[in-house]
Amino acid sequence: MSTHGYESGRLNLPFVGIATFAKRRYIEDWTEIEADIAILGAPFDFGTQWRAGARFGPRAVREASTLFAFGHAGAYDHEDDCTYLPGSVRMIDMGDADIVHTDTVTSHANIEVGVRAALAAGALPVVIGGDHSVNIPCINAFDDQGDIHILQIDAHLDFVDERHGVRFGHGNPMRRAAEKPYVTGLTQVGIRNVSSTAKEGYDDARAMGADILSVRQARALGPTALAERLPAGARVYVTLDIDAFCPSIAPGTGTPSHGGFLYYDVLELLQQVARRHEIVGIDLVEVSPDHDPSGSTAILAAQVLLNFLGFIFHARGFR
Amino acid sequence: MSTHGYESGRLNLPFVGIATFAKRRYIEDWTEIEADIAILGAPFDFGTQWRAGARFGPRAVREASTLFAFGHAGAYDHEDDCTYLPGSVRMIDMGDADIVHTDTVTSHANIEVGVRAALAAGALPVVIGGDHSVNIPCINAFDDQGDIHILQIDAHLDFVDERHGVRFGHGNPMRRAAEKPYVTGLTQVGIRNVSSTAKEGYDDARAMGADILSVRQARALGPTALAERLPAGARVYVTLDIDAFCPSIAPGTGTPSHGGFLYYDVLELLQQVARRHEIVGIDLVEVSPDHDPSGSTAILAAQVLLNFLGFIFHARGFR
Amino acid sequence: MSTHGYESGRLNLPFVGIATFAKRRYIEDWTEIEADIAILGAPFDFGTQWRAGARFGPRAVREASTLFAFGHAGAYDHEDDCTYLPGSVRMIDMGDADIVHTDTVTSHANIEVGVRAALAAGALPVVIGGDHSVNIPCINAFDDQGDIHILQIDAHLDFVDERHGVRFGHGNPMRRAAEKPYVTGLTQVGIRNVSSTAKEGYDDARAMGADILSVRQARALGPTALAERLPAGARVYVTLDIDAFCPSIAPGTGTPSHGGFLYYDVLELLQQVARRHEIVGIDLVEVSPDHDPSGSTAILAAQVLLNFLGFIFHARGFR
Amino acid sequence: MSTHGYESGRLNLPFVGIATFAKRRYIEDWTEIEADIAILGAPFDFGTQWRAGARFGPRAVREASTLFAFGHAGAYDHEDDCTYLPGSVRMIDMGDADIVHTDTVTSHANIEVGVRAALAAGALPVVIGGDHSVNIPCINAFDDQGDIHILQIDAHLDFVDERHGVRFGHGNPMRRAAEKPYVTGLTQVGIRNVSSTAKEGYDDARAMGADILSVRQARALGPTALAERLPAGARVYVTLDIDAFCPSIAPGTGTPSHGGFLYYDVLELLQQVARRHEIVGIDLVEVSPDHDPSGSTAILAAQVLLNFLGFIFHARGFR
Amino acid sequence: MSTHGYESGRLNLPFVGIATFAKRRYIEDWTEIEADIAILGAPFDFGTQWRAGARFGPRAVREASTLFAFGHAGAYDHEDDCTYLPGSVRMIDMGDADIVHTDTVTSHANIEVGVRAALAAGALPVVIGGDHSVNIPCINAFDDQGDIHILQIDAHLDFVDERHGVRFGHGNPMRRAAEKPYVTGLTQVGIRNVSSTAKEGYDDARAMGADILSVRQARALGPTALAERLPAGARVYVTLDIDAFCPSIAPGTGTPSHGGFLYYDVLELLQQVARRHEIVGIDLVEVSPDHDPSGSTAILAAQVLLNFLGFIFHARGFR
Amino acid sequence: MSTHGYESGRLNLPFVGIATFAKRRYIEDWTEIEADIAILGAPFDFGTQWRAGARFGPRAVREASTLFAFGHAGAYDHEDDCTYLPGSVRMIDMGDADIVHTDTVTSHANIEVGVRAALAAGALPVVIGGDHSVNIPCINAFDDQGDIHILQIDAHLDFVDERHGVRFGHGNPMRRAAEKPYVTGLTQVGIRNVSSTAKEGYDDARAMGADILSVRQARALGPTALAERLPAGARVYVTLDIDAFCPSIAPGTGTPSHGGFLYYDVLELLQQVARRHEIVGIDLVEVSPDHDPSGSTAILAAQVLLNFLGFIFHARGFR
Repeated sequence: MSTHGYESGRLNLPFVGIATFAKRRYIEDWTEIEADIAILGAPFDFGTQWRAGARFGPRAVREASTLFAFGHAGAYDHEDDCTYLPGSVRMIDMGDADIVHTDTVTSHANIEVGVRAALAAGALPVVIGGDHSVNIPCINAFDDQGDIHILQIDAHLDFVDERHGVRFGHGNPMRRAAEKPYVTGLTQVGIRNVSSTAKEGYDDARAMGADILSVRQARALGPTALAERLPAGARVYVTLDIDAFCPSIAPGTGTPSHGGFLYYDVLELLQQVARRHEIVGIDLVEVSPDHDPSGSTAILAAQVLLNFLGFIFHARGFR
Repeated sequence: MSTHGYESGRLNLPFVGIATFAKRRYIEDWTEIEADIAILGAPFDFGTQWRAGARFGPRAVREASTLFAFGHAGAYDHEDDCTYLPGSVRMIDMGDADIVHTDTVTSHANIEVGVRAALAAGALPVVIGGDHSVNIPCINAFDDQGDIHILQIDAHLDFVDERHGVRFGHGNPMRRAAEKPYVTGLTQVGIRNVSSTAKEGYDDARAMGADILSVRQARALGPTALAERLPAGARVYVTLDIDAFCPSIAPGTGTPSHGGFLYYDVLELLQQVARRHEIVGIDLVEVSPDHDPSGSTAILAAQVLLNFLGFIFHARGFR
Repeated sequence: MSTHGYESGRLNLPFVGIATFAKRRYIEDWTEIEADIAILGAPFDFGTQWRAGARFGPRAVREASTLFAFGHAGAYDHEDDCTYLPGSVRMIDMGDADIVHTDTVTSHANIEVGVRAALAAGALPVVIGGDHSVNIPCINAFDDQGDIHILQIDAHLDFVDERHGVRFGHGNPMRRAAEKPYVTGLTQVGIRNVSSTAKEGYDDARAMGADILSVRQARALGPTALAERLPAGARVYVTLDIDAFCPSIAPGTGTPSHGGFLYYDVLELLQQVARRHEIVGIDLVEVSPDHDPSGSTAILAAQVLLNFLGFIFHARGFR
Repeated sequence: MSTHGYESGRLNLPFVGIATFAKRRYIEDWTEIEADIAILGAPFDFGTQWRAGARFGPRAVREASTLFAFGHAGAYDHEDDCTYLPGSVRMIDMGDADIVHTDTVTSHANIEVGVRAALAAGALPVVIGGDHSVNIPCINAFDDQGDIHILQIDAHLDFVDERHGVRFGHGNPMRRAAEKPYVTGLTQVGIRNVSSTAKEGYDDARAMGADILSVRQARALGPTALAERLPAGARVYVTLDIDAFCPSIAPGTGTPSHGGFLYYDVLELLQQVARRHEIVGIDLVEVSPDHDPSGSTAILAAQVLLNFLGFIFHARGFR
Repeated sequence: MSTHGYESGRLNLPFVGIATFAKRRYIEDWTEIEADIAILGAPFDFGTQWRAGARFGPRAVREASTLFAFGHAGAYDHEDDCTYLPGSVRMIDMGDADIVHTDTVTSHANIEVGVRAALAAGALPVVIGGDHSVNIPCINAFDDQGDIHILQIDAHLDFVDERHGVRFGHGNPMRRAAEKPYVTGLTQVGIRNVSSTAKEGYDDARAMGADILSVRQARALGPTALAERLPAGARVYVTLDIDAFCPSIAPGTGTPSHGGFLYYDVLELLQQVARRHEIVGIDLVEVSPDHDPSGSTAILAAQVLLNFLGFIFHARGFR
Repeated sequence: MSTHGYESGRLNLPFVGIATFAKRRYIEDWTEIEADIAILGAPFDFGTQWRAGARFGPRAVREASTLFAFGHAGAYDHEDDCTYLPGSVRMIDMGDADIVHTDTVTSHANIEVGVRAALAAGALPVVIGGDHSVNIPCINAFDDQGDIHILQIDAHLDFVDERHGVRFGHGNPMRRAAEKPYVTGLTQVGIRNVSSTAKEGYDDARAMGADILSVRQARALGPTALAERLPAGARVYVTLDIDAFCPSIAPGTGTPSHGGFLYYDVLELLQQVARRHEIVGIDLVEVSPDHDPSGSTAILAAQVLLNFLGFIFHARGFR
């Protein structure tokens, strides 16, 4: 018995332990959140038009995040010579919003309740989808939070108004967002190839305040110039569809689209935006783990999220 | 050029050609069906409570069926010394019912339209799901077809009335069926383990005319005695959930349940029922091909369907 | 907002929420356990001789267990006409023992600490491996618990004394157990085919009190006669290696062995043993989820464990 | 019934319906082709030297193409501000050439018959392999079509004359093509790493009119300069081996070769070539879907093909 | 350095070392074989009618066999209380016959050369396919070995004479064998479901001396009665198509067929036959490892082969 | 028989034959090595902190290497106009070091014995892991070989001194190496993201002579400038962790890290280093084939190794 390891604390290797996000505490009662960051799973995928499976996104991203869970010492980045997410940043896992099969309206409403709870607690809400339609209740929850600008990183414009009665599927969220009075504009980056949005959608988007950039256009600008296209002083909500990335690193998604971003394309954009803007909310959607047996997609999602959170709170002075 | 093979017709190996069901003709215009058997895909899976993916069931079963597509010569079975599905049996593929994401009601209605079209043409409707909720519009379509008895082969009772407002998910179809005046009874075979149906569901089912048998109970009876439990003279609709089978041969499904049927358990039951009863409709549901990289599940579905159709039309005198 | 579902509680579908075992509460502080059942993960796999990967067994079994998590209402089984695991049975998840890479001795010691904590709290310890060597610290922890009899369900005898200095690998646990003064005997069921145990191992096992039965021998006896071979009145510890099962339902394991048990072979044995004996501890080992992309193996493990726990507490009067 | 969706036409989501190429009409009788584009599957893979499996390429590419099947409205590309493949472009699916196992000569002859049928109908033949040897009968079919220049995009030179009697394997097609009097030259792009072509093959190729460029050489030139290396005014046949691409986006192929092209490398080359030259025929080969469980490779093939067809017919004035 | 393990020989765990069959010595020069058993790989799969991939069968079965490679001590079986394959049984691995892509005739001839070499050395030839057509050259090689009886264990009759010119595909071998004057008869076990053999094939087979039994018929007889159907005193060649087994344990094969044998069905038959008859040759075919990510199929093949070889040499007095 | 292929030697396609490295001869007796290059497998993975599985790295890389096994003619590279690895370069496969489960010290010692044997024979030792801890015994074996500089290509710094008693895990090797008096310095390239090395590890590394460069820093320099950072005249040992590469081409590894190198990043660096420096030893580690069903990772490892060996012996004058 004298050889066990608990005297000096746990080694806590990544593969050990309950898979909450970054192995942080699970807070079941949403009235008791005391945190700077609140993670909420939104395992809804009835809004997909090709492969479903994003309902297992939250669990997969949580498990992948344990690979990067280094406890209260924070994470040292030698390129930036900086330790991100020190122990002073309080992060908790709210678990998942309740999803009701066959019922889009109720499921979305339940997600909205969770985001409101995070906001009420003064925490940054970080929602892990689920398909991109879960962005709709997220944005709904900001109706009492002041004006926001949306930065969408995605392969698809998602600006369909209505087709066959569908207004809350994963092709509609940016249209729904643009309709909100408190959404002052959108920057839509990574948009490429044909999709469910026709030419009219693009025209409408631009008319409603969207700045649309393809992967090639974004690369030609570079991350700094790209970040500078967002309005100065805007409070920014970031919605990141994992299919913005190249299928080479994100095959586990519902509607893969070749020609997407590589890792540093997005990471450097997020770092620049975090330096310039207050980030008020985040969702990361469309991780479908069953379509990527290597696990790379969920690891990408976790790695991007944790680095982005590090950038945000570094900018807020947590160092 | 003299060496090509078309002078003597095509060899038409299984891996060659467009993947319609059994490589039969696709009839896009449902008012023009002239067939004994009409195959309809119902790629709907928003009714699932664990893994989605059954929306790709129709395509996967069609592709698997090409392994058993032997053209107009029929299929010889040496055990029965019999050639099933001779050229005189006319079978066509209707393609899929139109599915609308996020909208259960419209999707179900579209499936119902397809089944009604098959029935109007005098064809035996064979619906490939999709999750088990697609049985609901199938049964709806029989409202002008006279009394039917339902033979359900499944791991789960699917007899939930309503939970959180859900009445049309994949846990509800047998309850919905039992409510129909023209459904005179149910024989539910293979039911095992815990599921979303609580004790009250079993009590309700029995009260509404259900005969419930587990895998072990069914095996103890044997296929003949089992078939004899169906009311004599009943016109039978068969709904086959692939999770009735053991996950060893049907891992590609949404809610696998160990302890299921092996191949001959079900085949022999279907053969006995086909001998004794008029089969008026069939659905086979819950094949989720992305969860079975070996392809065994879809092959099982195709193999069972084609053999069952052989038995039915053999009983009708096509030999 | 009026449409969300929380007014009536959560629907809590299986795919929703943090993946603790059966979605039960996680107790991080092992001095605060108040439970009838305490689940402990033991993600150690350096003891394997073929494929590693069982370190992800605990997380995979936990996630699979959520498919069978039906809350406080318990689970109704229509064959037994009985509701198992009613709300009065208190079950908690202890998380995982701390594992130290390259260090077998410390890792095992940490597992032992966890089992002792469960026993100290009066809870039934249920350990999810990890490879079969994790049984060694489990049995060590019973040194102050009185005499026990071990029921091993496994393909392999695991009775190697020492080879090349190895005494704590996954081929050694039953030898280590048999050496304990408080282990009064072993019943080893499912043993088949060649393995790392040579003839001398079998001779030694029998000399040290083992009753060894193959799959075919066990089936010939049937579950009742098999259960009756355990000494009357013995307090029984059950160690279940998932490779006892046929690779058809448990391909996700380190050293698969064809010719194994099917589901009811084991379930009925466990039910009979639970009726006749006090069960004092359980481990279930060798689930390697990365070797089974269908997920069937982890589902089997969760399904067997939850049913077995239901039988045990039914026998203890929880109904 | 009033809620079904057919009154306003079908929504026709990508996952719905029979998997012909881009969901276009299947024309079984090759004497009745009336189309601008005719798709032919050539599921032959006996010519492979490493992994087989390309026989399932045509079905996989067809299914993937349904993700990009947007009907008669065409596909809007916001970068080019252009709608490609408007309804006025007539495209049909011929199904597959008949393949005879063990018989390379007959199988190839049957492919040749199909290409001749497309050409006879005045359609652009687009052949989906199958291994690269299917290019041999494709080029054979052009013997009455006037001079052509071949643009090969590939990792391998495929210029072996004969080894152990093999002249029609997947290492031989460019040699066979170069021997044709009506093939006036070859541009071979993407060639890299060691392969079954030895130094003599390269010398022979150059002597027979080949311009050979590696991935790095092609990138250094850029797509425009690269396209300008093709002879002005040449009528161009494009043969695209999916292994020209990096295994990161095309792992599902027989002989993967690292260091390949990324998506825009090839897309931009094809766009430049389509602007400058008449494209008279296309084959896309070596997609082996069973080696890519994520499906990315087939999606890449479909996405490249549909974009290339869009460029070609845009250049022909269909806008 | 004093701690390394080589002083006492190697532990030689299954996952360690070059993957020859059972880790036995590779003999490259086939004139130097001195062995009782000679393993030959025949990685030919151009004869398949559905999925290819059996070309990787020999390598996969070799790697799987290392799980059962226990060196010169032999393998103890507690059910039989017997040590099989003691060190006195000399087994070597010949490597693979040379395969020429696109060329069936030469590839088959090369296999024949290998089998003749094994026979010339007085060794039992054991050929690992490849598809079932590799049986054709195996049987050819017996033309100077006296009369043989063939025991085929298979899902399919493989008795097609000729279709579209094909006489040497995987649907033809039993017909080719039956034509040999030195093949005195065939026992064909496991035959089920529809296949590429039509009714005439069955009639021809019976006319040419075949005894055809389905899985159900074989099980009803039991292994002893089944073995007794082989002619007394016959020298038996065994050809085992892995698709004789249920896809639950053998999904990794070209043409899976549900309803197949489980492990002991075949093992007990082989044990009975080995007791009664001289076994003069073996082939095991149609393992396609890429279609079974769990590896179960190759493990099954290795496990059956090694047990069968144990039975054979036990019967020859090696104990 | 006259048609077989052996008269003209074997065609020896990649998929044919025993899977030694590059199909070279296996030398079991390590005192009999006569070679320029000696390949040693080190299938040890108990040192991993996330996914195990690298124990199957040696077998997987060997099998993948057969795709590039072109015999004594060497491999022609048209970009360099050069034939690499001509027949005059003698390469053999030593098989694997003996690994003892649960025992890190003995397993490492056995690897060290193998590397010493290669060095004693005057061969370049090339070790295929296994996890990165196998580098520790490799470097140990150089204690009588004069001074060496280490070039590490990796995502992780691997410079942990000790945590919870662990000094020989896969997070420790570069620290262990730096402690050796004959290791004069380290160049660590590709290091990125957070990992098990904290800030102190970086400080220590730099203090002990390390030059640390991220992927972005390395790319900014380019391969030539990068190679020039190594001390002139240094004898270089190269340790290549496959996770240095982007998960897009190397998903099959224990701890994937996004943002890694693409193929030519590393190839060109290795080519430059081979031109400037004597390479005295190589290890390539962390290939875990079971986590990459496409096989791309093992193919990458084999392709990089064979090209690097070509560069090294080209520089030594073998052309």
